[in-house]
Amino acid sequence: MQGAGGIHKGEIPGLMRITSEWDLLGKIRERVGKTGLPHPESLFKGIGDDCAVFAVDDSTFGLLTTDISVEHVHFSRDFGRPADIGFKAMMGNVSDIASMCGSPRFALVAIGIPADTMEEYVLELYEGMIEAANQSGTIIAGGDTSKSDVLTLSIALYGEVPRKKLAARDGAAAGDIVYLTSTTGDSMAGLEILKTGDRARIGRYPDLVRKHVRPMARVGIVQEISQVFAPTAMVDVSDGILSDLRHICTESGRGFVIDTDALPISPGLKAFTRETGSDPRTYALESGEEYELLFTSPRDLSATMNVNLNGIPVTAIGKITDKGYSLVRNGVMVKAGTGGFDHFK
Amino acid sequence: MQGAGGIHKGEIPGLMRITSEWDLLGKIRERVGKTGLPHPESLFKGIGDDCAVFAVDDSTFGLLTTDISVEHVHFSRDFGRPADIGFKAMMGNVSDIASMCGSPRFALVAIGIPADTMEEYVLELYEGMIEAANQSGTIIAGGDTSKSDVLTLSIALYGEVPRKKLAARDGAAAGDIVYLTSTTGDSMAGLEILKTGDRARIGRYPDLVRKHVRPMARVGIVQEISQVFAPTAMVDVSDGILSDLRHICTESGRGFVIDTDALPISPGLKAFTRETGSDPRTYALESGEEYELLFTSPRDLSATMNVNLNGIPVTAIGKITDKGYSLVRNGVMVKAGTGGFDHFK
Repeated sequence: MQGAGGIHKGEIPGLMRITSEWDLLGKIRERVGKTGLPHPESLFKGIGDDCAVFAVDDSTFGLLTTDISVEHVHFSRDFGRPADIGFKAMMGNVSDIASMCGSPRFALVAIGIPADTMEEYVLELYEGMIEAANQSGTIIAGGDTSKSDVLTLSIALYGEVPRKKLAARDGAAAGDIVYLTSTTGDSMAGLEILKTGDRARIGRYPDLVRKHVRPMARVGIVQEISQVFAPTAMVDVSDGILSDLRHICTESGRGFVIDTDALPISPGLKAFTRETGSDPRTYALESGEEYELLFTSPRDLSATMNVNLNGIPVTAIGKITDKGYSLVRNGVMVKAGTGGFDHFK
Repeated sequence: MQGAGGIHKGEIPGLMRITSEWDLLGKIRERVGKTGLPHPESLFKGIGDDCAVFAVDDSTFGLLTTDISVEHVHFSRDFGRPADIGFKAMMGNVSDIASMCGSPRFALVAIGIPADTMEEYVLELYEGMIEAANQSGTIIAGGDTSKSDVLTLSIALYGEVPRKKLAARDGAAAGDIVYLTSTTGDSMAGLEILKTGDRARIGRYPDLVRKHVRPMARVGIVQEISQVFAPTAMVDVSDGILSDLRHICTESGRGFVIDTDALPISPGLKAFTRETGSDPRTYALESGEEYELLFTSPRDLSATMNVNLNGIPVTAIGKITDKGYSLVRNGVMVKAGTGGFDHFK
């Protein structure tokens, strides 16, 4: 779910005495990669993707992923009910499985609980996790519990994917179309609205708020995506389209151009950005934790007006190129800076 | 590794507003158990054991386990170098797989890191985890990293076991012999010694200290245990023999009698308890995080003086009975109280 993929895909937000989180992650990768692997041929992917991939049998890959959610870093008790926090933490893991074109099977829930936590709060966290598990066909099969000074949810998920359908990050080819499920941007707008604490406003944008507190992983349409598009690379939108598409391009050794005018925008985000005088495309490009799927495919269905899989629209938003990261806005092509969309405002 | 097994096997040490941790764990189990399992027949064990067990194919079970280690609760930076903390956290998970007679395959490491942590500290944590992984045939296949107010290591481990060899907790029968690998007690004594901060004393008992900071899971002899003993039930000693044998008896609906005079005691623990004037059997019965294997078998090899598997001695320490928990000391049988050994001093 977090950015860097695979081994230590997480980012460490905020300042650390550790000077650069990416530097640290690189060093961890290097050390872990040096372990004398007893049977490396069975571990298909360990580093650089949303899940570790290993051989179960001749036709099936096993998928393993984990995400740690820490209070004050990933969530705040102020902006979400415990059931929402549990739901989102579970969905983040499910989304990692979906991004490989897989199906989740079993979840393990490790939880650290501060001493002053009310029992009901913990049980509601579980209600949310159970709801997300039920909606995605996941079984909560085990876990561990500890006291902790900070509320921590660490979920690990095992899933499976037919070998032929595995969608990794490194298969994008120049000329492939970039597709996105549903819309992005709502989660970021929803959080902004929640942070105002303005109840009337929160009530006016229920869809935006809901996308922030109850995002749905697209695990229900991965079979259809596989059949219709045969994706060459896929990620879930956890850091924002700009950032996540970079992950595909880094692993595939390619570049991209995103047509920002083609970005799908929800009616709620349109209304919200009209009210605030902001550009919905900024939200669409930078909003994370959306759990939409972003994938590349040589199949050009962009001329088809409505590609719709089980009610979820799929939109062509750009192309894979040989190299470089570019954005098109109002027909003009500009470079995408590392800071994303803002750089060409 | 922790006490209650399977779903939320953990204990929550210390006071919580949550009045009873066991009460909470029971409620969590109840709720998780109610999830509409999409294919429950494939989940062989989800609650009440060291690992979740599911069907991989006709001959193999998949095993999943997770343990969360939290600073100030499970470890202190004062009593262990970071490599030791990482090593022990990984071994705790490996031990859960061993206790099912399984072999570990892939680990996921989720880590929460306080902002003031030195990079070198984190890398040394990994060195310890990698060392434990290498020694146990485990591959670190993925992970996640986050900032956190408290250092947290949450490891999830996937392993496998041939279906015929699975050792659960619920198969002990009256008359079975209770066996223990190696010795117990050293870990508790080692921690006591470390807490004194007395360098000379620490230097005098290297084996006790080592057992506390670098316990070895017995994953290397599970095949031999399976062949020689065909265990009816097995656990790893994570809470202490008295407590862990209760888990077997609870799940199996049986009782036990432990012959405390038969408990194997290491030379180091003998010397230490002579010096302190304490009873080594108290340590042997109550010391946790030993990662020794405790199992039951109808095969009576107790007359054989030296049962030794790949250099690891195995000792008969008691029997499974119809009901009740008893201890024999100096030939006299007494009830084992819930507080354990101390109750009959």
